[in-house]
Amino acid sequence: MSTLPTVDRRALLGVASALAGAGALPSATLAQTPAPSPPPPAPVTRILARYVVGARADALPANVRKEAARTLLNYVGCAVGGSEHEAMDMAIAALGPFSGKAQANVLGRRERFDISTAAFLNGVSSHVFDYDDTHLKTIIHPGGPVISAILALAQRRKVGGPEFLNALVLGVETECRIGNAVYPEHYAMGWHITGSAGVFGAAAACGKLLGLDEQQMTWALGIAASQSVGLKIQFGSMTKSLHPGRAAQNGLMAALLAQQGFTANEAAIEGKDGWGQALSTRRNWAEVTEGLGERYEAALNTYKPFACGIVTHPGIDAAIQLRNENRLTGAEVETVELHANPLVQSLTGKTDPATGLEGKFSIFHCVAVGLIFGAAGERQFSDAMVRDPRVVDLRTRVGLKLDAAVPPEKCDMVVRLKDGRVLTKHIEHALGSLEQPMTDPMLETKFSDLARDVLPDAKARRLMDLCWNVEKLDDAGRIAVAAAV
Amino acid sequence: MSTLPTVDRRALLGVASALAGAGALPSATLAQTPAPSPPPPAPVTRILARYVVGARADALPANVRKEAARTLLNYVGCAVGGSEHEAMDMAIAALGPFSGKAQANVLGRRERFDISTAAFLNGVSSHVFDYDDTHLKTIIHPGGPVISAILALAQRRKVGGPEFLNALVLGVETECRIGNAVYPEHYAMGWHITGSAGVFGAAAACGKLLGLDEQQMTWALGIAASQSVGLKIQFGSMTKSLHPGRAAQNGLMAALLAQQGFTANEAAIEGKDGWGQALSTRRNWAEVTEGLGERYEAALNTYKPFACGIVTHPGIDAAIQLRNENRLTGAEVETVELHANPLVQSLTGKTDPATGLEGKFSIFHCVAVGLIFGAAGERQFSDAMVRDPRVVDLRTRVGLKLDAAVPPEKCDMVVRLKDGRVLTKHIEHALGSLEQPMTDPMLETKFSDLARDVLPDAKARRLMDLCWNVEKLDDAGRIAVAAAV
Repeated sequence: MSTLPTVDRRALLGVASALAGAGALPSATLAQTPAPSPPPPAPVTRILARYVVGARADALPANVRKEAARTLLNYVGCAVGGSEHEAMDMAIAALGPFSGKAQANVLGRRERFDISTAAFLNGVSSHVFDYDDTHLKTIIHPGGPVISAILALAQRRKVGGPEFLNALVLGVETECRIGNAVYPEHYAMGWHITGSAGVFGAAAACGKLLGLDEQQMTWALGIAASQSVGLKIQFGSMTKSLHPGRAAQNGLMAALLAQQGFTANEAAIEGKDGWGQALSTRRNWAEVTEGLGERYEAALNTYKPFACGIVTHPGIDAAIQLRNENRLTGAEVETVELHANPLVQSLTGKTDPATGLEGKFSIFHCVAVGLIFGAAGERQFSDAMVRDPRVVDLRTRVGLKLDAAVPPEKCDMVVRLKDGRVLTKHIEHALGSLEQPMTDPMLETKFSDLARDVLPDAKARRLMDLCWNVEKLDDAGRIAVAAAV
Repeated sequence: MSTLPTVDRRALLGVASALAGAGALPSATLAQTPAPSPPPPAPVTRILARYVVGARADALPANVRKEAARTLLNYVGCAVGGSEHEAMDMAIAALGPFSGKAQANVLGRRERFDISTAAFLNGVSSHVFDYDDTHLKTIIHPGGPVISAILALAQRRKVGGPEFLNALVLGVETECRIGNAVYPEHYAMGWHITGSAGVFGAAAACGKLLGLDEQQMTWALGIAASQSVGLKIQFGSMTKSLHPGRAAQNGLMAALLAQQGFTANEAAIEGKDGWGQALSTRRNWAEVTEGLGERYEAALNTYKPFACGIVTHPGIDAAIQLRNENRLTGAEVETVELHANPLVQSLTGKTDPATGLEGKFSIFHCVAVGLIFGAAGERQFSDAMVRDPRVVDLRTRVGLKLDAAVPPEKCDMVVRLKDGRVLTKHIEHALGSLEQPMTDPMLETKFSDLARDVLPDAKARRLMDLCWNVEKLDDAGRIAVAAAV
């Protein structure tokens, strides 16, 4: 025991009786009083929850519904196409033994798992070719986290088509608006935004289908906030595809927990020590809260025409157009000159790709297959294709003229033929951009190309029709059944 | 088509032939060449993986093995005690329907689930009372993520006691060393470090039990890096307890995926756009890589003697010592003066708690129950307890004298009795600190107190014996079976 210093009785009792008597406290204590808190920010989590809970399917504008159906079709094609990737075999071998009752399909495969496992697996396959949809403002791939989750959920509880499409749109709104609020700083920190923002989209969309009330939806978004997935360093590894899969699964689980009353902080997105603080150096919450139900990020979704990085797309677009307009085969080409932004070299400058995956990072390979095959789909990035003598020969004839004054979405191409002719092509906006969107027939061609080795043609055709007509389905889960082998 | 600007043929071919011919590029391009990269950091992920793969159970020092058994016993007691919390009922209602084959027990309950679901649930219950172990250097609660994962895994594949304890230690080393490398900046950003670093501990420990090789272990840590869970804003909500649960589950899944060859970036922890960059503003990787196998963070684990925030512990310790030394009952106390660090008021200054949970944030309640009951376990923080007239009366007689010169781990207390006596107590290091650790009998009393309403006394006794003797078990999974009701 030691001697206690003299105690100021008045101060002591002042504190003990009310803890409000700061005037009676010794000055040493006053100096410790924290500064007044700044005014609370807008209740972002709650505003978003209220919007998602109240948004009605019949209020969706026609263009948004149309784009959502295109998003769905593109998603299903990518997931079917990726379903035989070795990453899927590994994930199924690792996680399948722990799956619950078979309730939901893995698109493009015969296995059925519980909805949580199925959501994860479909999210992985939808992204494994890097060929999925892109919200260009944030580089989020919106479909994977959201549709993987709600399609699995729709196999457990019957969901009508309009309700399904509404949930899809609300999920995309949620993830893309949160992404807008923190892009590009969040992305620059190292986050793979498709996983880190995607979890909110999955939670919101699943919560909508589960009929959560505003309080539950707030908790669902809060539970999701603690479970962001994804780092950019994983690009080039299988874990990149794990990100949308886990985002789908975590969001689904967040909604299911919230439905049972499992609580989370109600300002988890915007509050002190919350998601925005921890995961971004800047936040503009107005991007989340303003114009809800008036403007739709879901209407701004785009689809890759080519199965490789977006900086290669103007060059590939030019190559394919020149081929088709001039019936080129590749053999008559002497040289190709691509006048492009320097990013094309720094991101895709690989001159001598050894694998199909490396081919995606070789603008020379990309342009060569565009000129020879008029396509740059997944089959143009096989290991065999990068060794094809015609492709190897042509890619060595492709040269770059780099110029920072050329925006990344544009390019010019000059093709000199062995017979002396010179062909040129200017690309103002590459195919797949908002200004030059993939047409519905182009999306169907992409789908068919992805599905060809997985599903019979007639089955792929029926699956596309289900996607286009999703709003007429009384059971949206049929899409998942139809996509199984 | 547009006219292509003049092309410098030499530059073009220089690039096309080798992409190394920077000297031939136009100056506009040269200006875009990125600066040389800094030298690569130490391969932290791989060094850690190599250590975990190679570390042998028989190399563990005796003090580390002893502390690991204490960690195990404390973990089991906390998980059993928390097993009937409503958060557990909700989580089981939400996730149980999707569980796979019943392979693993939920401690303190009758339900059995697949090992992934069980790992999650045990992680939740171990933390739901905020009564678990603490690595004081980082405020990580090491047991929850690691033991929840390996105890479930040990129910799927038989694991001997020494092997189990070794995995436990290696998991704790992994999470605490990574925590050391980024604390306090990571914590200050908003991360709940038990979840965000805990996932690495679970991955390493499960990977060890699965016998991963160095490459697989590197992937397991890499997959874990993408799946950090936990925000500080969740403190006070059920999602705080979700964090160690999900960390356990994500780490287990990471190890299972890596075992199948699922790849991740091999510098996911330390690399550009990796975990350290995204989740902390400072990193000291030497904390991870130096002294592996020589010094053990697992030997620095501590255990809460009281079921409330650590700043209240010196005051409670003083109250209990004065009570026990003077056979006080509370009724004879006129006033209590607690001379303490101002944090005691700012973190636990609630004068009139209405619920048991609020009682944990009231130093006045804490001191009162310490004086009356000689304890501040979970049952001293029931809703009924904060309404007990004796407790209410005494807590209004407790006053604070705050002084920043008093370190948070110390305090002085003066108790004036109605008969005029004055009792004093100085606390140099509160019970439960590294300097004044909980003794084995104290840990047993805590365990018994937690288990009392869940398990019969004889069963609790046998369970404690299994934990103390874990190294003699040929099947560590028996602990989980013995902890079920």
